Amino acid sequence: MSKLEIYLKPKEEFRLLRGESFVYSNEIESFEGSLISGQEAYVYSSKKVFIGKGFLNTESKIVVRLLTRKDIDLNKDFFRDLIKSAYESRKDLGFDNAYRLFFSEADGIPGLIIDKYGDYLVIQVTSLGVDLRKHMIVDILVELLNPLGIYERNDVPSRKKEGLELIKGTLYGDVPDEVLIYENDIKLLIDIKNGQKTGTFLDQKHNHFAIKPYVRDKEVLDCFSHIGGFALHAASFGAKHVLALDISKDATDRILANAKLNNLSLEVDTCDVFERLRTFNQEGRKFDVIILDPPAFAKKSDDIKKAYQGYKEINLQAMKMLRPGGYLITCSCSHYMYPDTFLEMLGDATLDSKRRIQMIDFKIQDSDHPVLFSADASLYLKYIVLRVSDFI
Amino acid sequence: MSKLEIYLKPKEEFRLLRGESFVYSNEIESFEGSLISGQEAYVYSSKKVFIGKGFLNTESKIVVRLLTRKDIDLNKDFFRDLIKSAYESRKDLGFDNAYRLFFSEADGIPGLIIDKYGDYLVIQVTSLGVDLRKHMIVDILVELLNPLGIYERNDVPSRKKEGLELIKGTLYGDVPDEVLIYENDIKLLIDIKNGQKTGTFLDQKHNHFAIKPYVRDKEVLDCFSHIGGFALHAASFGAKHVLALDISKDATDRILANAKLNNLSLEVDTCDVFERLRTFNQEGRKFDVIILDPPAFAKKSDDIKKAYQGYKEINLQAMKMLRPGGYLITCSCSHYMYPDTFLEMLGDATLDSKRRIQMIDFKIQDSDHPVLFSADASLYLKYIVLRVSDFI
Repeated sequence: MSKLEIYLKPKEEFRLLRGESFVYSNEIESFEGSLISGQEAYVYSSKKVFIGKGFLNTESKIVVRLLTRKDIDLNKDFFRDLIKSAYESRKDLGFDNAYRLFFSEADGIPGLIIDKYGDYLVIQVTSLGVDLRKHMIVDILVELLNPLGIYERNDVPSRKKEGLELIKGTLYGDVPDEVLIYENDIKLLIDIKNGQKTGTFLDQKHNHFAIKPYVRDKEVLDCFSHIGGFALHAASFGAKHVLALDISKDATDRILANAKLNNLSLEVDTCDVFERLRTFNQEGRKFDVIILDPPAFAKKSDDIKKAYQGYKEINLQAMKMLRPGGYLITCSCSHYMYPDTFLEMLGDATLDSKRRIQMIDFKIQDSDHPVLFSADASLYLKYIVLRVSDFI
Repeated sequence: MSKLEIYLKPKEEFRLLRGESFVYSNEIESFEGSLISGQEAYVYSSKKVFIGKGFLNTESKIVVRLLTRKDIDLNKDFFRDLIKSAYESRKDLGFDNAYRLFFSEADGIPGLIIDKYGDYLVIQVTSLGVDLRKHMIVDILVELLNPLGIYERNDVPSRKKEGLELIKGTLYGDVPDEVLIYENDIKLLIDIKNGQKTGTFLDQKHNHFAIKPYVRDKEVLDCFSHIGGFALHAASFGAKHVLALDISKDATDRILANAKLNNLSLEVDTCDVFERLRTFNQEGRKFDVIILDPPAFAKKSDDIKKAYQGYKEINLQAMKMLRPGGYLITCSCSHYMYPDTFLEMLGDATLDSKRRIQMIDFKIQDSDHPVLFSADASLYLKYIVLRVSDFI
């Protein structure tokens, strides 16, 4: 098999030299060698300076995802070193039971996510080059962690862009229908075969814990609860009453099951959360703490204007419903809603609310979901706490 | 005494309607009544719509600082309500021993800072209207908190812009030369009569604690240590060795005294930190954790270009000196270094460092230093953690 060399158009190497890893089809001037998708590709600038190596996929707009800037083999040792380094870094940060073990390009392999749920691992692969090597990755994970089971959640639609089939199933060992994990001191039963993402969202563990100072003896409304990360923590931190809203019956059933598991008491309501917020406002309902953790309103940059209005509507509704001295805990997981835009939206809503609003906390996603400066998609989660009172 | 009415030029009310509180001299069209500095002024739009009330100061560029949007008396009850509300909000958030009790316009009174150091209070006043009422504020604080002493640190140069003298001294009770406070579990002796700001910086208590996951058994370099907030926490969290650098002998003496008080061991060096970082780099010195918490490089918006270079230099030096898997904990307290600019600078330094850098945390100032969306100066502190390793 001949070595594949890809030559970029002039100046197209700059983004890659800044640390980005995607080579798009329209950036390529010429190539030498055989175009076999999934095989190693050597990428050069227009002046024939070596930039790096990655796997080829002629079926994707992203023709190469760079994996290294050196001329080394992309073999099992290479993958093991990167996965081991990510695993060690999580252990060094104190992660233990359930966490994101490997976060795609932020950990050095674009297209590979590995999540740990207790004794089980879930992998999600969104590039052809990695997909062809998934059994090698399973071997590495067995050597490193000796898990009871490894499951693939390769049912994510973005795989279609790579020409990959949507598939899920057990790759190693046995994987039960429900896995028990710990988030801080809360027990959660996770359906890794059918739950959202790889089973659930693992990116707000610290933020769920961070609501502790706001909820004791308070009446808490948790909106877009999913399986109850915020709601269960609020109940465990001594909230007087917690009402959790989600449109999915499966989600609210799971919240109740998890509440029982933790001997916690809370109320759930399966409903359209947008409508319910409007109704509550019309009825004059009041809360001490409102949590907003909606799904991503902006999934691409074009959506941002509509998303801005969506975020503003729910935040304004919440601002109006809080008792004086109440807290609004508001999140956005839309990468395209940049921190500055999210803050601007909150400033806008503040003005319309005619209330006195202080920002008292700003956090991002957990540290097992690291951010690369070069990959702007990797800073996606904003968690902000506002204290709402009235002007004198 | 006749009522003073101030009429703005057309459209100058918009900023104030958005929640800002400063009325500048060049925004005023006309007035009716007597111009007596320190007295109440009623502010109206050019269309004679009432905007709010505040105190007049003809000697300042900021002629009026709005205190209310209602037509109510700015009397002792008004001040007590605002101070009590701020005090209750801190208690609700769990603050106890030492914290910022009142943060100027973010708590409703521009020009008034109240810091609590154990049983003692320090006030700092930077507007004439509040300065004339400082003994009333002392009375309110005695009623609310019954402190052992209240000290004024009105030696801040910005008072000159208001035509106010620089002064410090005891306003109530007795104030000792050193006050013992607790920051998390660390004891600190604070010189509230001569220390920086009102004695020390109270805005990073949570961030000092947040370094816990990064320092155990590690070799830590703390740059611009001041009285050792980060360094002492690192030592208490089990760092193998802590070296604290500060240009002030008074600061490094205080770190050693505070280390002794807490039975902690660390090393200090009184030096020009910029030069020392360059020397360490030349010598090839390596650390596991480096903390950068420099003074504000940009004190006004014109300074930002130079400040950017200053921040980039020290961050790049630190990135180079970290062992693989090491942590850079980097702060900026320059308000003019906006979050996006600070992130851009770190991206720039990342590129120059040629190392693999992940951002794993982003926090702001403590919640007893709340941020107003309308007052852009109030979000000033950025605390970011980077994990530094090498490309494979």
